[in-house]
Amino acid sequence: MSAVAARRRPASRQDAAAPVVAMVGAGQLARMTHAAAIALGVRLRVLARDRSEPAVLAGAPHLLGAPDDLERLLELAAGADALTFDHELVPPEALEALVAADVPVVPKPGALLLAQDKLAGRRALARAGFPVPAHAHARTLADVDEFAAQNGWPLIAKAPVGGFDGRGVWEVPDRLATEGLLRELSDGLLLERALDIELELSVIVARTPNGETAVYPPARTVQRDGMCREVSAPAPVSPRVAADACELAAAIAREIGAAGVMAVEMFLVSGTLLVNELALRPHNSGHHTIEGSRTSQFEQHLRAVLGMPLGSTAPAAPATVTVNVVGVEACDPRSHLRRALAVAGAHIHIYEKPSRPGRKLGHVTACGPSLDGAARTARRAAAILEGRP
Amino acid sequence: MSAVAARRRPASRQDAAAPVVAMVGAGQLARMTHAAAIALGVRLRVLARDRSEPAVLAGAPHLLGAPDDLERLLELAAGADALTFDHELVPPEALEALVAADVPVVPKPGALLLAQDKLAGRRALARAGFPVPAHAHARTLADVDEFAAQNGWPLIAKAPVGGFDGRGVWEVPDRLATEGLLRELSDGLLLERALDIELELSVIVARTPNGETAVYPPARTVQRDGMCREVSAPAPVSPRVAADACELAAAIAREIGAAGVMAVEMFLVSGTLLVNELALRPHNSGHHTIEGSRTSQFEQHLRAVLGMPLGSTAPAAPATVTVNVVGVEACDPRSHLRRALAVAGAHIHIYEKPSRPGRKLGHVTACGPSLDGAARTARRAAAILEGRP
Repeated sequence: MSAVAARRRPASRQDAAAPVVAMVGAGQLARMTHAAAIALGVRLRVLARDRSEPAVLAGAPHLLGAPDDLERLLELAAGADALTFDHELVPPEALEALVAADVPVVPKPGALLLAQDKLAGRRALARAGFPVPAHAHARTLADVDEFAAQNGWPLIAKAPVGGFDGRGVWEVPDRLATEGLLRELSDGLLLERALDIELELSVIVARTPNGETAVYPPARTVQRDGMCREVSAPAPVSPRVAADACELAAAIAREIGAAGVMAVEMFLVSGTLLVNELALRPHNSGHHTIEGSRTSQFEQHLRAVLGMPLGSTAPAAPATVTVNVVGVEACDPRSHLRRALAVAGAHIHIYEKPSRPGRKLGHVTACGPSLDGAARTARRAAAILEGRP
Repeated sequence: MSAVAARRRPASRQDAAAPVVAMVGAGQLARMTHAAAIALGVRLRVLARDRSEPAVLAGAPHLLGAPDDLERLLELAAGADALTFDHELVPPEALEALVAADVPVVPKPGALLLAQDKLAGRRALARAGFPVPAHAHARTLADVDEFAAQNGWPLIAKAPVGGFDGRGVWEVPDRLATEGLLRELSDGLLLERALDIELELSVIVARTPNGETAVYPPARTVQRDGMCREVSAPAPVSPRVAADACELAAAIAREIGAAGVMAVEMFLVSGTLLVNELALRPHNSGHHTIEGSRTSQFEQHLRAVLGMPLGSTAPAAPATVTVNVVGVEACDPRSHLRRALAVAGAHIHIYEKPSRPGRKLGHVTACGPSLDGAARTARRAAAILEGRP
């Protein structure tokens, strides 16, 4: 590992002062982090699978490689002040090996695991006394029967690892459907009671390795087909619920030793907050912070992983709504850019990803005096970019 | 030129929808334009002198070459929907050759010339009836004597071409000092009466090749040593002066056929607006629009040169102040990044340029309820980045 240690600091005198952040992954989160890095004069270097990934197309310096290739990860981390992530795909063993090689992994593998493994996350939160939905780990049909006897049908079943954007989450109506899933998933299932959810919230919290913490006001997220489609800030909840959600997120960040930006997704059920999932990275539910907050989650993530002072999380507008642009066919949203830019007040973000049905290709944010007005603007421009009439 | 024409449209199907903008120059304006291009999914390609230029370090795809190398310029323009500029250094003959080769040069060479040549700009504005300071072109001491007899000493003398950031502008106290300048400058001097300036204003105006126009509210600029040091928006002037300044800028844009973003610098003298200089590109006096306006001048420039609908120029905050970070010694402002980020509300922009005394290395913007408060915040962070105590 001495070669890595020797390359920890850049060589040239001019660059000695440039903070370097390495990021595993080169998707839209890395792309938007790169845009934030340009302003701060931070050098971002990403690990990409190929040159067509969003952050590479945005010009982020990159290495090509797989996120489970330890040699590549060490190369990526060489000279970096922090190694961080745009996804959860680095295997825990590789993360531990990086730490053993003295790489400044942010956040620490133990905290990352709680986002990588939904079951581990749920158990850790429950153990620490945080409110979570009723759940169980089912490896056998007997486990399923026991949980169903207490919670009734239907149930929510989740793959403990690897699921996102609606993949790996099922509403199962009965024992038979669950049996099929159990056969497919070697790790078993995370079972959850089907809750009567009033609304879903996300709280973005940033934390430095030293424990400085900054919490954004809660946003409401609206899911469709298991994928986040809209984010509204501030969330339409009482000041008490908003304050509780912020406190909860900050307490979780402290408890698990989070560092960087983390999203805490919550359910509001009969006036009570329940913690659903964690993401230890910038998150789709925080894109509204680019225009809607004094500090974007991407700049905040850079500041946090570098252990620098955090920025203000105060809103920059009374109401901000972000609507995702989701692929409906093989059509580039930029074909409709001209028409979308004609929507007054729409802030357009295109990720330069090839279109596929159900894939997030960009987002639109609108700010304004009211959530309704901002939502109308953002939805109109997003619909145009999706090629809908 | 058939090779150029053949390369006008990108080949791959995925990219067919990506607008391509070529920009001559790779300084901080190109760097910030690149950051704006990332959001829109626009491909920016810059012409850089070397790989250490700010836009190259930000990851903008680039060609290396000089701005007077026609072959390089043609290569840069190949496949681009617009060729535009981050400086005024492309010779008029090269611009005309590009137009002759069917390159979509935005703005047109005739309009660009008015920024390249201060004398040509001044004369064109005067001829069209716009208010400008009393001035003359002096080639001989007799010319100087004649102008001094009408306007007294001291006078302001400017090199007609090539000056910026305080270079090429002199306050001359007497005939003798002017004689020395006349000997040095083969194009003669643009002489101006030394005015009793109440304040200096800049109006950023965007115009598409089709004539759609959007005007930002006037900003106040404060110069020191001939260099813009601070920009405050809104400018502290009466609503009538503000409206007049906007109208004047829009009328000039129309008159000269500007396209893209243009800065119109004005003097307020005894309650009257006089037009000083034009810059036909994003401008230092418009950096406050990144955080302080609904649409930044960089996104606006891309929209304008592509002939796409322009964005809102409305303020995003009641008051915004930008303070330039100017080199005082060979010290990278990033050495002080941590301390500067501790200044609450400071938005930091670093250009990654090697420090030299008097060189713009970055800027800091602060928004808030009042100009005074925003100025205090921006000045404090800028002073820290300059290494001042």
